[in-house]
Amino acid sequence: MPIPNRAVLLLSGGMDSTTLLWWMNAQHISQIHTVAIDYGQRHRIELESSAKLSALAGAASHRILKLDLTQIGGNPLTDANCDVPAAADDKQINTVVPYRNMLFVTLSSAWAETEGITDLYLSPVKDDYAAYRDCRRDFYNALENALSLGATHETDVRIHTPFVDKWKTEVVALGLKLDVPYQHTHTCYEGIRPACGTCNACTERLEAFRANNVADPLPYT
Amino acid sequence: MPIPNRAVLLLSGGMDSTTLLWWMNAQHISQIHTVAIDYGQRHRIELESSAKLSALAGAASHRILKLDLTQIGGNPLTDANCDVPAAADDKQINTVVPYRNMLFVTLSSAWAETEGITDLYLSPVKDDYAAYRDCRRDFYNALENALSLGATHETDVRIHTPFVDKWKTEVVALGLKLDVPYQHTHTCYEGIRPACGTCNACTERLEAFRANNVADPLPYT
Repeated sequence: MPIPNRAVLLLSGGMDSTTLLWWMNAQHISQIHTVAIDYGQRHRIELESSAKLSALAGAASHRILKLDLTQIGGNPLTDANCDVPAAADDKQINTVVPYRNMLFVTLSSAWAETEGITDLYLSPVKDDYAAYRDCRRDFYNALENALSLGATHETDVRIHTPFVDKWKTEVVALGLKLDVPYQHTHTCYEGIRPACGTCNACTERLEAFRANNVADPLPYT
Repeated sequence: MPIPNRAVLLLSGGMDSTTLLWWMNAQHISQIHTVAIDYGQRHRIELESSAKLSALAGAASHRILKLDLTQIGGNPLTDANCDVPAAADDKQINTVVPYRNMLFVTLSSAWAETEGITDLYLSPVKDDYAAYRDCRRDFYNALENALSLGATHETDVRIHTPFVDKWKTEVVALGLKLDVPYQHTHTCYEGIRPACGTCNACTERLEAFRANNVADPLPYT
């Protein structure tokens, strides 16, 4: 896919989307508009990280869009009555809110359309592929098609997922080269700072740094 | 498409979706779960109509899902700073919030998935086809594909649009046969009761009744 002049990036403030932001800067995309979704997440730190990282990267704008997924329910990332799965449980699937990525992309596309922007970036990685069907490229191809056919005026919407075939370890390797300020990113499912270091998300993150022989700059309990 | 046993219906409380609800009852779908979307509409009467009609039809459940489209902005249906286009303006396109239907269907699908329901009904009609690209069947085919590929587990999601090739006049003709209580439906873009009788939505509605030689039971100013 050709690199556009203007684009919207879904920036969660996590490791992958932040690396993508620095990568986009390196591609000389002149206007990067970052969007974070306030979906009622227990870990509100994510939203602060996202805003800070957008500013650090010199993005053209940052916007928080609200989409309350707590009303869908039954999910540990939004539901205070659910336990966050520990890494040992290997139950990544439990952290899925149905169609979360699809809703995030579509809502961002709605805003992007009002700005005349048709290029969207997001950062699914290969590690997510097995458990999350909405992290696969064939899904994004289908979504791109639906977004193009459903746009107010005839247009080609492009969903860029440049990390979809990279392992998290490779993403971190790339980010280290790009001087991504990983100390400001947020990952922990428990939504605490210092991070717990034991949940699925923390464990994956620590492994990715270890594989690169680099210490994670984030403080852990 | 085969008629399912359980289904979710997007019920706005307007003429078309209400007729669809009565039509679904006539198809003997045993569990119809109605969903109304609170998207920040100026015409809140819509949400009351929807709940009332769901109960009148004996639906299995009724649920209001929130999705704030006012944050996308620039639209007369949500933005108090925009004028509602009069019918004479012929500017139906101005009442479009980008990807509104796509967001409504996807959010409803998220909830439906938690209930194990894979069949969704909604009521685009032929009159909408020209101005609204997201009222066309090729769009819904693409969306169905994206929803199937993006579902948490492998599944076939089906989006039923039985009125997509019917004119509003034909929908009213069908509804009159099915004894749809049109006095409880709501249409007016101005969000008032009695209805204004002059906005695009009212004008279309009145024309549909006139074409059937029947008086619209709704009070108008």
